[in-house]
Amino acid sequence: MTRTNRQWKLAKRPEGAISEGDLELVPSLVADLEDGQALIRNIYLSLDPTNRIWMSDMDQYMPPVEIGQVMRGGTLGVVEESRNPAYPEGALVSGLGSWQDYAVVPADFFQTFEKPAGVPLTAFQGVLGMIGATAYFGLLDICDPKEGETVVVTAAAGAVGSLVGQIAKIKGCHVVGIAGADEKCEWLRSLGFDAAINYKTENVLETLKQHCPKGIDVVFENVGGEILDASLTLINQNARISLCGLIAEYNAEGPVPGPYMFRNILMKRARVQGFIVTDFAPRFPEAIGQLAQWMAEGRLQYRVDVVDGLENAPSAVKKLFDGSNKGKLMIRVSEEP
Amino acid sequence: MTRTNRQWKLAKRPEGAISEGDLELVPSLVADLEDGQALIRNIYLSLDPTNRIWMSDMDQYMPPVEIGQVMRGGTLGVVEESRNPAYPEGALVSGLGSWQDYAVVPADFFQTFEKPAGVPLTAFQGVLGMIGATAYFGLLDICDPKEGETVVVTAAAGAVGSLVGQIAKIKGCHVVGIAGADEKCEWLRSLGFDAAINYKTENVLETLKQHCPKGIDVVFENVGGEILDASLTLINQNARISLCGLIAEYNAEGPVPGPYMFRNILMKRARVQGFIVTDFAPRFPEAIGQLAQWMAEGRLQYRVDVVDGLENAPSAVKKLFDGSNKGKLMIRVSEEP
Repeated sequence: MTRTNRQWKLAKRPEGAISEGDLELVPSLVADLEDGQALIRNIYLSLDPTNRIWMSDMDQYMPPVEIGQVMRGGTLGVVEESRNPAYPEGALVSGLGSWQDYAVVPADFFQTFEKPAGVPLTAFQGVLGMIGATAYFGLLDICDPKEGETVVVTAAAGAVGSLVGQIAKIKGCHVVGIAGADEKCEWLRSLGFDAAINYKTENVLETLKQHCPKGIDVVFENVGGEILDASLTLINQNARISLCGLIAEYNAEGPVPGPYMFRNILMKRARVQGFIVTDFAPRFPEAIGQLAQWMAEGRLQYRVDVVDGLENAPSAVKKLFDGSNKGKLMIRVSEEP
Repeated sequence: MTRTNRQWKLAKRPEGAISEGDLELVPSLVADLEDGQALIRNIYLSLDPTNRIWMSDMDQYMPPVEIGQVMRGGTLGVVEESRNPAYPEGALVSGLGSWQDYAVVPADFFQTFEKPAGVPLTAFQGVLGMIGATAYFGLLDICDPKEGETVVVTAAAGAVGSLVGQIAKIKGCHVVGIAGADEKCEWLRSLGFDAAINYKTENVLETLKQHCPKGIDVVFENVGGEILDASLTLINQNARISLCGLIAEYNAEGPVPGPYMFRNILMKRARVQGFIVTDFAPRFPEAIGQLAQWMAEGRLQYRVDVVDGLENAPSAVKKLFDGSNKGKLMIRVSEEP
C-alpha cells in the first residue's frame, strides 16, 4: 500500500525568530520497506526550544539540520508495517525522528515501549520521556540540591522547568520559579512552588531578592540573558548552576554578551555546568522509574499543550519563544491507536 | 623600644586603575606588646591581582578593605619580639597581613615556617606558598587534566600561570600559554610550554586555533574578557574551565559583559568552576610537599620580581594590570635575616 507522506524540510536558516518560508512542507510517497526496516506512523511530534538551535548553523551539541533535510524532532509513533522482528506491528516507538507523517526506519533507530493502563500516551513525550529525564538529571545530578537550599528555576512553567521545581520541592528545597505570565505563576504556586515571578511585569532582581532571603544555592537555567544575571547577582558561595538552555539567545542575530555578573562565578566559587540529557541515556530507566512513581503518588503534575496537525508545526514551535505555550508542546500528527 | 611604623591605608576606592591618592602612607608608632602578642617585621609583601578586588566594594569572596583600613596583603616576616611561645623570636611567619613595616599580631594570626637550606625565602611567597597552592589545586583538582589533553593558560607568565603550565606539562598535556610580551612568550617556551601567544601582537583566536588542533580540554583562566572568549570558542565536549581570576575586569567601571561565547558552556557540556585557594587550606601540605619535590627535581622553574621599599607598593601593584611584571611580584619591605 503506497502512502503519501508530508515532510517539513529546512528551506533556509531562520534569521532571528522562525518565520514563514524557513521550513517547507513537501509531499512525497513512502518507499516500500526493505528487509530490517519498519514503517512508523507518527502520532506525536515534540516541539522543543532546541529545535531552534538545530535550525541554525551555530556550533552546537549535535550536527545542525542541513538545508533541504527533513527537520529533526522527538517523535512518538506506532509501527504500521514491519520487516523487522524488533518492531512488531502495533508496537509504540519513540526517539529522535523527524517532522513528517511517516518514517521508514532501520533496526535500532527507535525504541519500543509499552503504555501502562491509566497513563496517557502524551506523558511519554513529557514527564516519562526526555523532558522528565532532563529535569531529573539536570537538577539532581548536576546540582545535588540539599534540603533547605534555595532553588531558582527559569522558564519554570515550561515542560522541563515545572518538573524541576516539583522535584526540588520533593527534595525539601525552597523553590522560586520565573515565568512569563500571571496565569503561569498561579499554576506554579498551585504546584507547590514557594514563589513565582512574572518577568514580564515584575523587576526580576528585586522580586528574586524578596523571595530568596537566604540567597540562591541552585539555579536551573533555561533562559540566559538578564534573567540569568539576576540569579547570578544573588548566588551564595558554592552555588551550582545547571545550564539546560539559553532560550533568550537562540533567536539572536550577531554576538550575545554573556551574563554581566559572570565574575560572581569566581567570587562565589560557583559552578556552571552545561549538560545534554542524552549523556545520561544509560541511566534513563532510573529516572523514568522514579518519575513514574512520583506521578503515581500524585506528587508530580504536568500539563500538555497539544496542537493538531503536522501542517501547524512551524507556527506552533514559535509559542516556545514568545512564552504563549502552556505545558509540554507537541503536535498531534495522527490519532492515537 | 618604640618603633616607627608606616602603613598604607585605603584613602578612597580606585576608579578604574589604581592611581595616586587611592592609598595613603601613614606613619604611626608600634604599640607595646600585650600578653599573647608578637611583633612581626615584614620582609616581603606579596602583590597580587586580587588586591584590586579588595580595594573595591564589589560583591567578593571576602570582605573588602574599608576606607581608612590598612591595605590587606600576603606577608612574610620575622618575629622580632614576642610575648607568645607560639611565635619564638627569630621565627619566620607568613599569612594574610597588611601593607606595613611592622605588625602586632595575636596568637594564631600567622603561621610559622622553616626555610630549608638552599631554598630562597622568596619561594615562600610564590611556588611554596599560596601561589603554588593556587596553581596546584586550581589545575589538578578543578580540571583533572588527562595525559594528551590540551590545556590553555592565560596570564601564563604570571606567578600562578607559569606554574600551572609546568604542572600541566608534568601531567603530559599539550600546553598553550597566553601572555602579553614576546619576552614572556620566549620564557614560557623555555619552561616547556608547547606554544605561547602574545595577545598584544597576535590574533588570539586564530593563533589558538593553530596551536590547539585538537581543540581545548582545559582552560586555566586568570584574565576573562576577549581572551576567555577565544578559549570558549574552541573548547571540546566536557571541557573544564578553572576560574582563578578575571584580571581584565578588576579595573572596569560599570557593568562588564560576560563572554560572548557563554552559550558554548551549554553546547559543549562544559564546566566553569570558580575557586579560591583558601578553600583548600587543609590540603596545603599536600600541595607544598609535591611542589617542593618537583622544584628539587628541577621540573618547576619560577621567577620573582622584587621591588624594593614599602613606599613603592602602590606603583608596583599596577604592574600586574599593565602586564609589565615578570614573575611573582613582591615588595622587599626589609632585609632578610
